[in-house]
Amino acid sequence: MEPTQQQLEKYADLAIHTGVNLQEGQAIMINAPVESADFVRTVARKAYEAGAKDVHVRWNDEDLTYLKMKHAPMEVLENVAQWKVDEVMSYAKDGAAILSIYAPNPDLLKDIDPERVAATNKASGQALKEYRQYIMNDKVAWSIVSVPTENWARKIFPELDVNEAIDQLWDKIFQITRVDQEDPIQAWEEHNATLRKAREYLNQKQYKKLVYKAPGTDLSVQLVDNHIWHGGDTKTQQGVKFNPNMPTEEVFTMPHKDGVNGTVTSTKPLNYAGNLIENFTLTFENGKVVDFKAEKGEETLKLLLDTDEGARHLGEVALVPHHSPISQSELIFFNTLYDENASCHLALGGAYPTNIKGGSDMNDEEKASHGVNDSMVHEDFMMGSADMDIDGVLEDGTTEPVFRNGNWAIDFD
Amino acid sequence: MEPTQQQLEKYADLAIHTGVNLQEGQAIMINAPVESADFVRTVARKAYEAGAKDVHVRWNDEDLTYLKMKHAPMEVLENVAQWKVDEVMSYAKDGAAILSIYAPNPDLLKDIDPERVAATNKASGQALKEYRQYIMNDKVAWSIVSVPTENWARKIFPELDVNEAIDQLWDKIFQITRVDQEDPIQAWEEHNATLRKAREYLNQKQYKKLVYKAPGTDLSVQLVDNHIWHGGDTKTQQGVKFNPNMPTEEVFTMPHKDGVNGTVTSTKPLNYAGNLIENFTLTFENGKVVDFKAEKGEETLKLLLDTDEGARHLGEVALVPHHSPISQSELIFFNTLYDENASCHLALGGAYPTNIKGGSDMNDEEKASHGVNDSMVHEDFMMGSADMDIDGVLEDGTTEPVFRNGNWAIDFD
Ligand SMILES: [Zn+2]
Ligand SMILES: [Zn+2]
Ligand SMILES: [Zn+2]
Ligand SMILES: [Zn+2]
Repeated sequence: MEPTQQQLEKYADLAIHTGVNLQEGQAIMINAPVESADFVRTVARKAYEAGAKDVHVRWNDEDLTYLKMKHAPMEVLENVAQWKVDEVMSYAKDGAAILSIYAPNPDLLKDIDPERVAATNKASGQALKEYRQYIMNDKVAWSIVSVPTENWARKIFPELDVNEAIDQLWDKIFQITRVDQEDPIQAWEEHNATLRKAREYLNQKQYKKLVYKAPGTDLSVQLVDNHIWHGGDTKTQQGVKFNPNMPTEEVFTMPHKDGVNGTVTSTKPLNYAGNLIENFTLTFENGKVVDFKAEKGEETLKLLLDTDEGARHLGEVALVPHHSPISQSELIFFNTLYDENASCHLALGGAYPTNIKGGSDMNDEEKASHGVNDSMVHEDFMMGSADMDIDGVLEDGTTEPVFRNGNWAIDFD
Repeated sequence: MEPTQQQLEKYADLAIHTGVNLQEGQAIMINAPVESADFVRTVARKAYEAGAKDVHVRWNDEDLTYLKMKHAPMEVLENVAQWKVDEVMSYAKDGAAILSIYAPNPDLLKDIDPERVAATNKASGQALKEYRQYIMNDKVAWSIVSVPTENWARKIFPELDVNEAIDQLWDKIFQITRVDQEDPIQAWEEHNATLRKAREYLNQKQYKKLVYKAPGTDLSVQLVDNHIWHGGDTKTQQGVKFNPNMPTEEVFTMPHKDGVNGTVTSTKPLNYAGNLIENFTLTFENGKVVDFKAEKGEETLKLLLDTDEGARHLGEVALVPHHSPISQSELIFFNTLYDENASCHLALGGAYPTNIKGGSDMNDEEKASHGVNDSMVHEDFMMGSADMDIDGVLEDGTTEPVFRNGNWAIDFD
C-alpha cells in the first residue's frame, strides 16, 4: 500500500525527535536524494515545528553521480572544492543536527572503472576528515534513515512492478522502524532500554576477546582495554541523546586494531562504492587482512582494502541476534543500514573513539598505542548467521558463551 | 500530450548548444528546482556528450524556501554563508557556463511578511554582488530556460487537471522555444539573424530618446550616449556566442538613469519575490520613480522600489512587437522570462554594462557619469500593448516612428 501522509509524518517525527532529537533553536542539515523530496519536505516541516532555526538540504542525485563518474576527467573527480568542505563544517561547527537519507542504488557504479571510484572516494575522504571526526566523536547529533527509491526497491523486489516494489519497501521500513506501531517514539524508548541492558552487561564483563565459530568463520577478536559497548541511543558531547541509526539492533564496541586473528566469511552481500561484494572471506594476522577472496566484486573489495593502512584492520565489532526483526523479514536489503542490523557484523576501517574510555580526547599517537584503528573508511560487513557461536574470554582466561546458534546465550533480565 | 523523450532531448540540446553554447572541456553549473530533476539529468547527459568536464547542479526547492521564509529567525534569513558565495564564484571564475531553470510559483510568498522577503533578498543581493557582475558583463556564458512545475502550470491553466496543465505548458514551451520545429538549433540561428537586423538598424540610428504613448502611458526615455542595442545571441568577453534567454524576442538597450520622465502603466502582472504585482503605474521625474500605485501587490512593489537607490531608476528599455509568438499565444505566463518576451518592457534596477560602449571597463564613478544605473535588482516589467506607439528622437531633434499599434513601424529588410 502507498504510504499515507500520516505514516510519513510519524516517520518524519521519529527522525526529528528520536533520531537527531532536534533542540529548539538548532539548525539541521539534511543529506538527501532529490527522489526523496516529498519526504524531505515533511521532515523540514517537522523540524521547524520542533523549533529549528534553519533547515539546509544538501541534495544529491545518483544519476548525476553516475554521469560524473563515467565522463568527468580524473582531475575533476579528485578535486573536492573547498566550499563543499566549508558547507558541512559550517553546520557542524554551529552544532547543527545532521540527518542523512540513505538509499543507494546498490549497482550504481558497476560499469565504472574501480580506479576512478577509488580516486573519488579517497579525495572526498581526505577533504572531509575534520567533518568525519565530528560525526565519529558524536560532537553533533546525527542520524541515518532510509526511504525507498526506484532503483533500491527494484533490487529488493525484482519480481514486482516498480511502484509495488516501492510500496512494499515502505511497508517493511515502517515495520522495522516501528512506525507501524501506535506510538513509535515510545516504542523506540522501550527498544533503547533493551539495548541498554545488553550493553551494560557487556560493559561490566570487559571481555578480553570474542571468539567466533561458524561455517567458514574461525576468528578471534581482541577488544581494547577499557572498551565501551554502545547500542541504541547515545549522547552528544553536550549531553543530548540521539539515535544515530534507524533501524538499529546492534550493540557494538572496539576491537584492538592489531588483535584480530583467523578467518571470517561474509553472510550477506556488501554494498560498497556503488557495487556489490558477495560471499567473501578475509584472513587476519595480528589485526591485518593478509588474504581475501570474493565470489563477486573482488575488485571492489580490493579497492576497499587498499584505501589506506587502516582499511585492512577492524574498527568495530557488533552483536545482533539472528532473530532480530530485520533478520526475520528474511529479505536482503542490499543496504548496510538494514542488513547490518540483521546480522552480527564487523567493520573494516576507522573505530568510533567513543568506544573506548577517553577516546574522544586522545591524539593520534595515543589512539594507536591503545589499539584504536584510524582510516578514511568505516564499512560494516555482515558475518552473523543462525549457525554462529560466540564465546567471551574473561581477564582470567575463563570462557563464557555469548551467542549460541546466532542468538544471545545470556538472559539480560 | 506528455512530452516525448525526443522532445526533451531536443530542448536539452538547445539549452546546451544554443543557450550556453557549451565548449569542450568547460564546466557547467545548473540552477534547478528538484522538481525538474528528469530534465536536468537529460541536460547533464547532453552536457557531458558535448565535452563538459563537470556538471554541477545547485538544487533548490520552493517548498523549503517557503518554510524557511515562514519560520526561520531574521538572523538566519539575513545571513548568506560564505560557502554559498564561494560555490558560485568558483564556477564563475573557472569560466563555467551557467544554466538556470526558472519556473517559480508566482504566488509562493504571498502570505509571508514582505519585510522578511525584502531582508532576505537584500542579503543575497549584497553577498552575490561579484557574481552578478560576471553575469551582467557576460564574463561567462549564461542562459535561462523554463520547464513546467506543478504550481506554475496550475497558475496558467487553473481550469485544467494539474497533469494536463503541465502537458499543456510543455506544449507551449516547445512552440515558443521552437523545439517543435524540425531543427530547433537552425530555427534559432534564423531567429537570431532577424533580431540582429533590428539591433543593427537601431544601433545606427542612435536615438537620443524614445517617446511612448499608450493608454495610461506617456513616457519619455532618454538613451545613454553610445548605447548599444542587444538582442538574440551575444558574446562572452572571450568571444563565445550564447543566448542568455530562451525564449527571447526583444532588442534592448540602456536608458539614462536620470533621463526618464512621465508615466507608465503596466500591461501584464509582474511576479516579484514570490508575489504578483498587477495593474500598476509609475511616475518618473528626472529618472526617478516619484509616485507609484498598484491595484494588487502594492506592498511588494514598494519593497522592490525600496531595495536601494537604483531600484527607483530604469536599467533597460526593450522593444518587443505585439505580434511576437508569445504574445499571440494570448496567455499570461506569470513568469517574466515568458511575459517580457510578449511585450515591450522596461527594467527597474541595474543596467547591463554591455549596453554602452566600454561599459564593462568603467568603474562605478564613470558609470554614474554616463547615466548607467546600478542596483542589486534588475526587474523587467511589461508595458507594451496593441495600442502602443513609440517615436524615436534623433540627435537633430527630428522624430521618427519606431512602433505603431504595438508593432515595428520599420521594415528591416
Ligand atoms: Zn555496526
Ligand atoms: Zn559501523
Ligand atoms: Zn528584457
Ligand atoms: Zn531585463
